[in-house]
Amino acid sequence: MDLYTYYRSTSSYRLRIALALKQLDYQSLPVNLLKGEQRQAEFLALNPQGRVPALRIDSGELLVQSPAIIEYLEEVYPQPALLPVEPVRRAQARGVAALIGCDIHPLHNVSVLNQLRGLGHDDSQVNAWIGYWITQGLAAVEQMIGEAGFCFGDEPGLADVYLIPQLYAAERFNIDLSAWPRIRRVAALAQEHDAFVQAHPSRQPDTP
Amino acid sequence: MDLYTYYRSTSSYRLRIALALKQLDYQSLPVNLLKGEQRQAEFLALNPQGRVPALRIDSGELLVQSPAIIEYLEEVYPQPALLPVEPVRRAQARGVAALIGCDIHPLHNVSVLNQLRGLGHDDSQVNAWIGYWITQGLAAVEQMIGEAGFCFGDEPGLADVYLIPQLYAAERFNIDLSAWPRIRRVAALAQEHDAFVQAHPSRQPDTP
Repeated sequence: MDLYTYYRSTSSYRLRIALALKQLDYQSLPVNLLKGEQRQAEFLALNPQGRVPALRIDSGELLVQSPAIIEYLEEVYPQPALLPVEPVRRAQARGVAALIGCDIHPLHNVSVLNQLRGLGHDDSQVNAWIGYWITQGLAAVEQMIGEAGFCFGDEPGLADVYLIPQLYAAERFNIDLSAWPRIRRVAALAQEHDAFVQAHPSRQPDTP
Repeated sequence: MDLYTYYRSTSSYRLRIALALKQLDYQSLPVNLLKGEQRQAEFLALNPQGRVPALRIDSGELLVQSPAIIEYLEEVYPQPALLPVEPVRRAQARGVAALIGCDIHPLHNVSVLNQLRGLGHDDSQVNAWIGYWITQGLAAVEQMIGEAGFCFGDEPGLADVYLIPQLYAAERFNIDLSAWPRIRRVAALAQEHDAFVQAHPSRQPDTP
């Protein structure tokens, strides 16, 4: 498989964790978002939305959108499972994933920050915007996850796949995590877990 | 089942369509977002994120986040199916759903528009912001969906569940859909389809 990725992209990082947890091999094809490579004709011909990640599977088809790709991996490579078996517990894990994937990350995506700067906002206003959304969202996540282990148990799963890249972004933007002990517990566990270490932005072929 | 809903909420509308397609009965419990009912202690005790929709299932558990709830419904009430059987086709449908659910709708959510107004932007700037995100996203969706029928075939599915409420929002914000014939074709089909008609914001118990 070929993964179109950018080392610091939250959603690429998310997908890299899922691939690593499932021990799937892939080749990284970096797309430099700062240089605008995602808007070049060659890439737009592959993915009309011009975003990473995108995953070319072995049949040649290109899959886009990290939530869709991760569900695909779960269906085609079911072990180790990222989701529990029981439908309500699956919905709880997917609920945390969706909260992060829909209500936090999209608000501080690079394209959104560029729009805000285009509206005349300076760094301090942009940082306040980012902080507002991350803080609102993580405060809810703290109440939705379990009291021990990863988000929902001893093994990492879908919610962790979304949470850890969101925490990396939170740290980049200097968000204080001290009010959220459950989240900090999950972060500490992930720091010691091979799949999360391998997928980290500091360890990618395009890491500067 | 009890559905916490708001007639005009894009994600509530999305979930109402899924419930209607699966012919599932539920009681509507309206939460007036304009009056701030979603931030009252009583509702926050149910859903710490203070958002709609939320679905109380018959076992008493409350499910949150429309993407998670819709996947739950698909798992527990598999017929009629919202997703095809084949994994790549499932990923394509989920890709359109995720593009709308992550990259369009969150950018014009009422909470985001309130933040923009708080930053001093007037209606024309807020409308330009909304238009930018909807137009960018729908232009990509147009290239991702099929050339006949609903988004991916003769029967409506997950992508349609997301697209139709997004088009309702697009119309409210005066977005011109004329450049996207495939999207307009899907909209015309949905207008004649019972489940989409029942779920429409104009037909809810809390419709003004």
